[in-house]
Amino acid sequence: MKMIGITMGDPAGIGPEIIVKALTDATEFEGDYVVYGAADILKYYCDMLNLDCKIRAIQNVSEYSDGYINVIDPAGLEMKEYEIGQLSGKCGHAAYLYIEKAIEDTQKGLIAAVVTAPLNKEALHMGGHHYDGHTEIFAELTNTKKYAMMFYGPLKIVHVSTHCSLREACERVKKEAVLDVLVLLDQALKQAGFAAPHIAVAGLNPHAGENGLFGMEEIDEIIPAIEQACEKGIRVSGPIPPDTVFSKALKGDYDAVVAMYHDQGHIAAKQQLMEESVNCTIGLPIIRTSVDHGTAFDIAGKGYASGQNMKQSMLVAEQFLNNLE
Amino acid sequence: MKMIGITMGDPAGIGPEIIVKALTDATEFEGDYVVYGAADILKYYCDMLNLDCKIRAIQNVSEYSDGYINVIDPAGLEMKEYEIGQLSGKCGHAAYLYIEKAIEDTQKGLIAAVVTAPLNKEALHMGGHHYDGHTEIFAELTNTKKYAMMFYGPLKIVHVSTHCSLREACERVKKEAVLDVLVLLDQALKQAGFAAPHIAVAGLNPHAGENGLFGMEEIDEIIPAIEQACEKGIRVSGPIPPDTVFSKALKGDYDAVVAMYHDQGHIAAKQQLMEESVNCTIGLPIIRTSVDHGTAFDIAGKGYASGQNMKQSMLVAEQFLNNLE
Repeated sequence: MKMIGITMGDPAGIGPEIIVKALTDATEFEGDYVVYGAADILKYYCDMLNLDCKIRAIQNVSEYSDGYINVIDPAGLEMKEYEIGQLSGKCGHAAYLYIEKAIEDTQKGLIAAVVTAPLNKEALHMGGHHYDGHTEIFAELTNTKKYAMMFYGPLKIVHVSTHCSLREACERVKKEAVLDVLVLLDQALKQAGFAAPHIAVAGLNPHAGENGLFGMEEIDEIIPAIEQACEKGIRVSGPIPPDTVFSKALKGDYDAVVAMYHDQGHIAAKQQLMEESVNCTIGLPIIRTSVDHGTAFDIAGKGYASGQNMKQSMLVAEQFLNNLE
Repeated sequence: MKMIGITMGDPAGIGPEIIVKALTDATEFEGDYVVYGAADILKYYCDMLNLDCKIRAIQNVSEYSDGYINVIDPAGLEMKEYEIGQLSGKCGHAAYLYIEKAIEDTQKGLIAAVVTAPLNKEALHMGGHHYDGHTEIFAELTNTKKYAMMFYGPLKIVHVSTHCSLREACERVKKEAVLDVLVLLDQALKQAGFAAPHIAVAGLNPHAGENGLFGMEEIDEIIPAIEQACEKGIRVSGPIPPDTVFSKALKGDYDAVVAMYHDQGHIAAKQQLMEESVNCTIGLPIIRTSVDHGTAFDIAGKGYASGQNMKQSMLVAEQFLNNLE
């Protein structure tokens, strides 16, 4: 197993806390981890939580030692410069630098995957980095044009569109977009160890349009995309009525689902055990997994944050890596 | 407890089977039941399933006797005239006549509520009755203009629109429509025994529009409807992001949810235990509950159909009646 990088996210959020919690719960991990972040705040949480671990600042991945939490700090932001739980441009900028350095080290072959703790979009913008979030940073810094987020848990879901109005989401259901997602998802599932993944495509309309009675997108866009994906050798079924496709996938009929819009996938996903579900950016030249929650400024610094979702993000990164080797 | 009518639905479907199964599982029922259907097919299933019950044909509700399954047959369709599991206009017409007679008896005050077994829309049309389903028949025969279907289970949901394209569903999110549903739902919940029901309204767009960033329907239509409902003394919260409103309702934060379109509600609902969830038509001058499944022609006549959802439909009708008395 190769080296894996963890970016600390916004130092004022719950990122540092969930990282030390996850790393000290180490029984299931096979990988070696390097944290891109700040040693002082990580040590602060270790002390506060009475965790049995030693923090060690290193300059390069090559200095990694077993038995420590090894930390590379490209930002040099110290605890005295910010308040835990408070928005600040300094923290947003530091969070950006952690990611930038981790991506750089991935491109140099020093680490094999990146697991990201949450950043705060507003702080990121205040720090001068005008991205929507992690995904766009990773896409730009790796020069990736076609990518998507995969919700990765008992249910595996990729969306054709996410943060736009429902009217706009209807417009975005185009053959090319559906086909792009199918190709990305098929590749990612194979990377995750599915030998012949079976993908379900949800319809856009009730009953998947019922042969054009409730909308034409299935006939005009979705079915042609499915046919073209099948021609490429991808194993696809659909369009399946949106209100049954997710329970069928959970039962094991399909390995993953292509959802047509944000809430179609999210309503189903949010009824699952969220601690088991993480995010992966698919289509990147590098492996990137992420917790499925935010900086939670309201509970930061209090010791209440659970490290479970971070741990799961690390285990999913290891799963992808295991299948690469 | 007053008398309750059960309509048998399509004789060739699973209606007769689930009715005898539910009625012979009688420990929890408080009401007296009259079936609008055919005695021969009900007896056929009792014999086949070795159920301990006697079928008795009666002409009027006044002839009801305890200890029997009492059957009123306004259609006179006999088993030799159709095949179990097959579509036919004869069965569609008979299913219509059972409903018509039950509604008539409700209007005469002979029965206090109607529980419906499934009919088949295609058979109904073949039988000369061009309705979309039960709901439209009940609305027309009771001359009701404003009505809606409530999904009634651990989650209680009413939709602003159901069987139309998603684009059309966006169009139908209008202040008046949302307000109408809120008024109907508040009345129905009070009828079901909620003293001060708390209703959540889902947004249409991701994150309920995020202040207009992802769509304007929340600001232009949904919020004004909520404000007007509050002025009428209805307890309403929202718009709530569609991907969290249902889990919040399940946790007990709200008694019911107004969903903006078919799949928004159905994706959430179908992840629940479906046997516990039934349908109620709200806004009618009479109480009507229904199973949440179809005629299942493929398993009709085989003894495999579960009577649990029919039983639940009967118990929900009793719950409404108990609160009326």
